[in-house]
Amino acid sequence: MTRQELNNEIFKKRSCLCVGLDISPVSFEKNKAVIDQTAPYAVAYKPNTAFYESAGWEGWKCLEKTVAYIRKAWPNHFLIADAKRGDIGNTAKEYARTFFERMDFDAVTLSPYMGYDSIKPFLEYKNKWVVLLALTSNPSAEDFQFLSFEKKFLYKHVIDKANTWADNNRIMYVAGATRPNLLRSVREAAPNHFLLIPGVGAQGGSLEEVMKQAKTTDGDILINVSRAIVHSEKGPAEAARAFASSMARFFS
Amino acid sequence: MTRQELNNEIFKKRSCLCVGLDISPVSFEKNKAVIDQTAPYAVAYKPNTAFYESAGWEGWKCLEKTVAYIRKAWPNHFLIADAKRGDIGNTAKEYARTFFERMDFDAVTLSPYMGYDSIKPFLEYKNKWVVLLALTSNPSAEDFQFLSFEKKFLYKHVIDKANTWADNNRIMYVAGATRPNLLRSVREAAPNHFLLIPGVGAQGGSLEEVMKQAKTTDGDILINVSRAIVHSEKGPAEAARAFASSMARFFS
Repeated sequence: MTRQELNNEIFKKRSCLCVGLDISPVSFEKNKAVIDQTAPYAVAYKPNTAFYESAGWEGWKCLEKTVAYIRKAWPNHFLIADAKRGDIGNTAKEYARTFFERMDFDAVTLSPYMGYDSIKPFLEYKNKWVVLLALTSNPSAEDFQFLSFEKKFLYKHVIDKANTWADNNRIMYVAGATRPNLLRSVREAAPNHFLLIPGVGAQGGSLEEVMKQAKTTDGDILINVSRAIVHSEKGPAEAARAFASSMARFFS
Repeated sequence: MTRQELNNEIFKKRSCLCVGLDISPVSFEKNKAVIDQTAPYAVAYKPNTAFYESAGWEGWKCLEKTVAYIRKAWPNHFLIADAKRGDIGNTAKEYARTFFERMDFDAVTLSPYMGYDSIKPFLEYKNKWVVLLALTSNPSAEDFQFLSFEKKFLYKHVIDKANTWADNNRIMYVAGATRPNLLRSVREAAPNHFLLIPGVGAQGGSLEEVMKQAKTTDGDILINVSRAIVHSEKGPAEAARAFASSMARFFS
């Protein structure tokens, strides 16, 4: 899926909702129920591999089954493997095969620490995306991401460097909602790239603020909500509908 | 296993060899053959999860079976999951459960990018280890690890900060053999910590140089060799024996 196609889906649905499929313990049937209930309100799904791995090979099988199901039942939804991998060349190739061949994800989240040759094998797949960690939403993001080299935070170095690796049809950035002023600085460093934004919902980021700081006229934004949808007391359908509804006015 | 116990094993065998179990395509029978042939010469095994994941759930099952086999057949060997994970608190907990509960690894490699709260859940397990990426062996390590903040490279910031998170019985660092002068700087920043050193063998790092720059009087060093053992024309037993033999004089 290209940037334009993904933005078209967002404006068509007036929603940039990405649903995090992080149900513990993992269950294909539960995933399927959440997917079918939220599909009309969401444009993307993002299972986090951690929840599947902790259930062992049966969990990994559940992940594969979930991906295959979404591909078949909801072919227009964008599929992100939240794996945060990062390893050297020949090993990175194996991870790329995992998420782009063995499973048919559109995108995978990666950590920048090891640099370009840990990312390159993923960029060699046409129509597939790298979602690179830049500014994460957790409190300890400040441990290293806020170190300042030549008056520029590490996370901005990551974005500036990665912008030279591929264009905005191949790479997007993770930028947390929990520090709105810094989210603005991410948008400035990547004015025409998709941002994948966690931290709205359970982590307390404001949807209004995120839209103000990070949405472009084209869209270019995916807002991930996991726990506040999959564990919602109102049920996933109603929770997703409410999130999408609060997004709608930004895409008219 | 404590630092002292691992160092005892190293001096007993006069070898700090860690064998990387990165056979592609993955096969439990092939792993078992490599393990049984190399066990007398090695103190540790390190499967890299990438190779198992690219074979899907069957690959993950092979990893679980391999770990269980080593635990049973070679209980004194140190077991490292080379996973390079890194995610926020509740997700990091799932990864910790994966490698320390579902599987019985002694240690897991982690990426520092997201900071302390991505590492903490792993440190809460007694007698388990975090192996934190500091200075990696790949060419693109320089993209971010060599950014200098207040005249100190990022990888040294990582070590200095992580030294405050746990003592040298809980944390060790990855430091590549491919840049010997920088390996020395890692040892200076972590004078009494174990270093896990990739890059000897296929990547061209010198064993002599690594020992000179990184070994302490206590030992505190694991040298990983993967391809040069598992794909050796001489066979894994002979290749591992040769590596161990060239290490022996440093532990007398």
